[in-house]
Amino acid sequence: MKIKLGVFGIGRIGKFHLDNISKMNDKFEVVGIADPYIDDLENVARKYNIKYFSKDYKDILKIDEIDAVIVATSTNTHAQVSIDSARAGKHIFCEKPISTKIEEIEDVIKTVNESNVKFQVGFNRRFDHNFMRIKEHIKKGNIGDTHYVKVSSRDPEPPSLDYVKVSGGIFMDMMIHDFDMARYLVDSEVTEVYAAGSVLINPEIGKLGDIDTAAVTLKFKNGALCQIDNSRQAVYGYDQRVEVFGSKGQAVAYNDQSTNVELFTEDGIKSDKIPFFFLDRYVNAFNTQLEEFYNSIKKDKKPMVNEVDGLKSVEIAIAATKSLRENKPIKL
Amino acid sequence: MKIKLGVFGIGRIGKFHLDNISKMNDKFEVVGIADPYIDDLENVARKYNIKYFSKDYKDILKIDEIDAVIVATSTNTHAQVSIDSARAGKHIFCEKPISTKIEEIEDVIKTVNESNVKFQVGFNRRFDHNFMRIKEHIKKGNIGDTHYVKVSSRDPEPPSLDYVKVSGGIFMDMMIHDFDMARYLVDSEVTEVYAAGSVLINPEIGKLGDIDTAAVTLKFKNGALCQIDNSRQAVYGYDQRVEVFGSKGQAVAYNDQSTNVELFTEDGIKSDKIPFFFLDRYVNAFNTQLEEFYNSIKKDKKPMVNEVDGLKSVEIAIAATKSLRENKPIKL
Amino acid sequence: MKIKLGVFGIGRIGKFHLDNISKMNDKFEVVGIADPYIDDLENVARKYNIKYFSKDYKDILKIDEIDAVIVATSTNTHAQVSIDSARAGKHIFCEKPISTKIEEIEDVIKTVNESNVKFQVGFNRRFDHNFMRIKEHIKKGNIGDTHYVKVSSRDPEPPSLDYVKVSGGIFMDMMIHDFDMARYLVDSEVTEVYAAGSVLINPEIGKLGDIDTAAVTLKFKNGALCQIDNSRQAVYGYDQRVEVFGSKGQAVAYNDQSTNVELFTEDGIKSDKIPFFFLDRYVNAFNTQLEEFYNSIKKDKKPMVNEVDGLKSVEIAIAATKSLRENKPIKL
Amino acid sequence: MKIKLGVFGIGRIGKFHLDNISKMNDKFEVVGIADPYIDDLENVARKYNIKYFSKDYKDILKIDEIDAVIVATSTNTHAQVSIDSARAGKHIFCEKPISTKIEEIEDVIKTVNESNVKFQVGFNRRFDHNFMRIKEHIKKGNIGDTHYVKVSSRDPEPPSLDYVKVSGGIFMDMMIHDFDMARYLVDSEVTEVYAAGSVLINPEIGKLGDIDTAAVTLKFKNGALCQIDNSRQAVYGYDQRVEVFGSKGQAVAYNDQSTNVELFTEDGIKSDKIPFFFLDRYVNAFNTQLEEFYNSIKKDKKPMVNEVDGLKSVEIAIAATKSLRENKPIKL
Repeated sequence: MKIKLGVFGIGRIGKFHLDNISKMNDKFEVVGIADPYIDDLENVARKYNIKYFSKDYKDILKIDEIDAVIVATSTNTHAQVSIDSARAGKHIFCEKPISTKIEEIEDVIKTVNESNVKFQVGFNRRFDHNFMRIKEHIKKGNIGDTHYVKVSSRDPEPPSLDYVKVSGGIFMDMMIHDFDMARYLVDSEVTEVYAAGSVLINPEIGKLGDIDTAAVTLKFKNGALCQIDNSRQAVYGYDQRVEVFGSKGQAVAYNDQSTNVELFTEDGIKSDKIPFFFLDRYVNAFNTQLEEFYNSIKKDKKPMVNEVDGLKSVEIAIAATKSLRENKPIKL
Repeated sequence: MKIKLGVFGIGRIGKFHLDNISKMNDKFEVVGIADPYIDDLENVARKYNIKYFSKDYKDILKIDEIDAVIVATSTNTHAQVSIDSARAGKHIFCEKPISTKIEEIEDVIKTVNESNVKFQVGFNRRFDHNFMRIKEHIKKGNIGDTHYVKVSSRDPEPPSLDYVKVSGGIFMDMMIHDFDMARYLVDSEVTEVYAAGSVLINPEIGKLGDIDTAAVTLKFKNGALCQIDNSRQAVYGYDQRVEVFGSKGQAVAYNDQSTNVELFTEDGIKSDKIPFFFLDRYVNAFNTQLEEFYNSIKKDKKPMVNEVDGLKSVEIAIAATKSLRENKPIKL
Repeated sequence: MKIKLGVFGIGRIGKFHLDNISKMNDKFEVVGIADPYIDDLENVARKYNIKYFSKDYKDILKIDEIDAVIVATSTNTHAQVSIDSARAGKHIFCEKPISTKIEEIEDVIKTVNESNVKFQVGFNRRFDHNFMRIKEHIKKGNIGDTHYVKVSSRDPEPPSLDYVKVSGGIFMDMMIHDFDMARYLVDSEVTEVYAAGSVLINPEIGKLGDIDTAAVTLKFKNGALCQIDNSRQAVYGYDQRVEVFGSKGQAVAYNDQSTNVELFTEDGIKSDKIPFFFLDRYVNAFNTQLEEFYNSIKKDKKPMVNEVDGLKSVEIAIAATKSLRENKPIKL
Repeated sequence: MKIKLGVFGIGRIGKFHLDNISKMNDKFEVVGIADPYIDDLENVARKYNIKYFSKDYKDILKIDEIDAVIVATSTNTHAQVSIDSARAGKHIFCEKPISTKIEEIEDVIKTVNESNVKFQVGFNRRFDHNFMRIKEHIKKGNIGDTHYVKVSSRDPEPPSLDYVKVSGGIFMDMMIHDFDMARYLVDSEVTEVYAAGSVLINPEIGKLGDIDTAAVTLKFKNGALCQIDNSRQAVYGYDQRVEVFGSKGQAVAYNDQSTNVELFTEDGIKSDKIPFFFLDRYVNAFNTQLEEFYNSIKKDKKPMVNEVDGLKSVEIAIAATKSLRENKPIKL
């Protein structure tokens, strides 16, 4: 039986989900969509053969046949939409972060627990083929005890200044993925955060109180150390790498490339660019995370990346922001 | 407007096409299927939401709304089914080889021309992301004049002896892909073929008059040379590589891998296996070739790989077979 | 004309220098050696065809024909031997660190300046083929402005506990190379250091007040950030990598391997181990640094890595040690 | 005890040997040199500290203390110089080919056997670190039974036309290395040769009756097949690759590179050129083959690559030349 979905928020990510889900038509059927800001909702609904649409997600929550919802609205509404959805008895897939405020996340957690629905947070990178393989190596014991993790995560170009303003800062908006990745790989909790940062790409980002180049150190309860670096602009593409070092060895995930072709000329050896667009890089991960959501509902199990992970990553982002401001390590 | 399809032959490849096409639902709709040997055609039709099914493909050819057909029947019927389809005014996508007999292919070509339909032959590898990139390098002049081409093509395991018996031999069944690839890359016609072969994997293959290890040399009209090697059993996976060497450089297509992860341990550095299954390796190529078919119909242009390519590759396969038997180079 | 050398300290590094120099016999001739702890100095002298030997380096300093000396004695004597050598008018190649005490290094600098001799410090990694190539990319502007540097430096196995005791700690003994590398690549001075560390390999190292796993962050005057990680035990070999990220791109130096051979089997793809021994990894760098020493004397120019570099790296190591103890970033 | 050497022929290769041997001064000492065409022999002798020199190698053969000779004279004198040296009781290291005439090689073999001296032929590539590793994989059984070998061997630029004239043709001059490599790896004898060739680089080479692009197929007694390609001009460098495919897997030797650095920019990923000069590529192999020569004398064992290998490779080259002319496979 297909899971019937409502999708809330039909922006870039929302549309991407609609596209993906249309190809997973053995698992999901989108029954309703909602977005207060989109004027051609009817066209979108027609294009994807969706029965119901509304400016108000609450209309869609009333539809009985809907089992679950995807929350892809603006970040500041994630918590409220999630709470309302949980109360309506719908399982929830919520884009990250759940909220930038700890109390709101705690409210979500409380409501989700009371309502007995599944809650998955959109840390898609856990489902990337390369990073899943790293995790597999760890689980099999190939690396031994984890001593050190390195995450490099760099965007191909900075977001608009308008977006920077409301983003919650680089740690909440961008490095939050890496915080979750580090927690996932180390399988221990972060006890302390130290953040260094610079404005090297666009001084306007600095004027808004944010940074564009960041280097963060995490200490874990089990003694493992982690270094993360972020840049808002890697001109060569969307640079996404992870390495895990331990007592028995090391696993390194290099970037994907669009082909395995090398060109040899008088100038040297050239290979293809790495992907520029995050949807290109993580297209499979976006699908695989929805399969996890499907399975967690069908098999009645907690999603692998759930509300608690959503909370922890935000706590680390808040600590990193504080560390940068006060220029000292911050304990969690 | 979607192109409405009939699919003939619901074996391994036929089913694979049905799966793929179901995800290309903005371009194609399968309206009818036919297969004389499948008993649960009705179930298949229901699963893929297909209106018509029949043991006899001629029933399906009568359906007016069908624009085009996919011929995935057994090889010895390709020509007749194609001819009947052309006469019914349907565009044709035909699996390779069109026939193992030159006269039959010539009949197909004649009928296709008279009927004014598009004909594409299923040399999917032309649409592989790596080999397309090689071709792009050639077209851009990055390699200069082509002097030498190397194709390595090795199956993960030999087919059943029953299949070997009816396969037409390794050149017609397996290396025919590489003959087409060489022609495609060199962009000139083959003038001479020399084939060497051994039975090194399974002596039973030899008893059937076939070989399991082959090394072929092609001479092209423009002076370029090509070496191809085939093996029926590469235990490490489905080995598919191409390199093109010319006056300005060289382009090399290595194998794909499922991840870009390396594991460093006391034993050395290990990376993942290459794909074992041809449908894994060429999944994108299978889709892209159908997009070419779609575009050739919609834009009324000859498919990039058409009936003439189907003929030429069979001519080379026949010459290679003769060369092996007579142990001398054979002119075309 | 060859440069005539005295070599002081005939331990592991001293002997390695003797071996190397014997193959650079168009540039150098070792005329005298000294070591207070070696009983078979005469045999060593005979083996390498060296005229003079003595337990006391001061005897060797009196030999007029000697132009320059290599100081490979125990670390705590580097400064005094260097000062005496400078006063004797000999050019000095001194192993790192010059001293673990800032005042002693300042004395060396003062004496070197007064004596008008060349002084080179043994940061051999600057002369590694990979890292030189990275520097070349930076100089050519291929990377643009440097935003971020990553240095990974891991030994194949921990030193003896006896050595750890007198080593000055991981920052002074091991990471000092990486501090110099970072300064060299960024071409700006370090303004702040933050050090995190763990004892994950051998608790005995912890009991001695040292750590075996370290993660350090450097801030540079020009805004660039740097992350360094060290481990005392990478079971897969001597892991030595650098990457530099900037406004126009990124240069990455991967590990060397003894061959470029890959083995494909049912288990996946395997390539060779990386070198285990630092003398294997940096054999060329050891030679190239002596060519720099030769050229600086012959062409009367300051060595590329001189007494000031020796001082700066020790200052950073001291700050890192303090940062670890006080758990806060330390300004320089 | 060092082996005392005479070196005959002080051209490019002869000088290269002198340089190398001067760094192997624990194993060899060059006592005499001879070359009829070099006017500054005295200077060469002085530079390398060599006692005797003469225009006539026979003068040098009379020197009692000389144990062994290196024959690096012009190809057409290799046989006679070797025979004279053997008769004088000197061990012989002879550059390839021993001769282009089978009878002359047979005379050499006869005399060497009668004189009871060691004879090594200069197939240096057997001692290359990559190809030795391939051989090691074969010996360990990692590849299983050998089914197929591929050798790609391409020069960075064509030799002078004057050289082409006297070279004996591409098979005798260039591919002879690859014939030896194939025999070495497959460990079986060649039974049949098929050669295809084109003139694609310089028509003048064609006018001299030679080709510049060659594709050869070898059949081995054990059933293994081998394909070799040669080009006189690979603009991207000295392309030297080998792969061996067998029942249990495959070993591939890629080209060496001067660094392990990758540059990521807006244009893609670039790595360094492969070496252009054969002495750069095979510098270690040149030394290692002399170590083999040293050991074969000291341990009184047949060199790993001896007079029989010298004969076999020439037989294959002659067959390849015949195959090209007659356009048919030639049996050996």
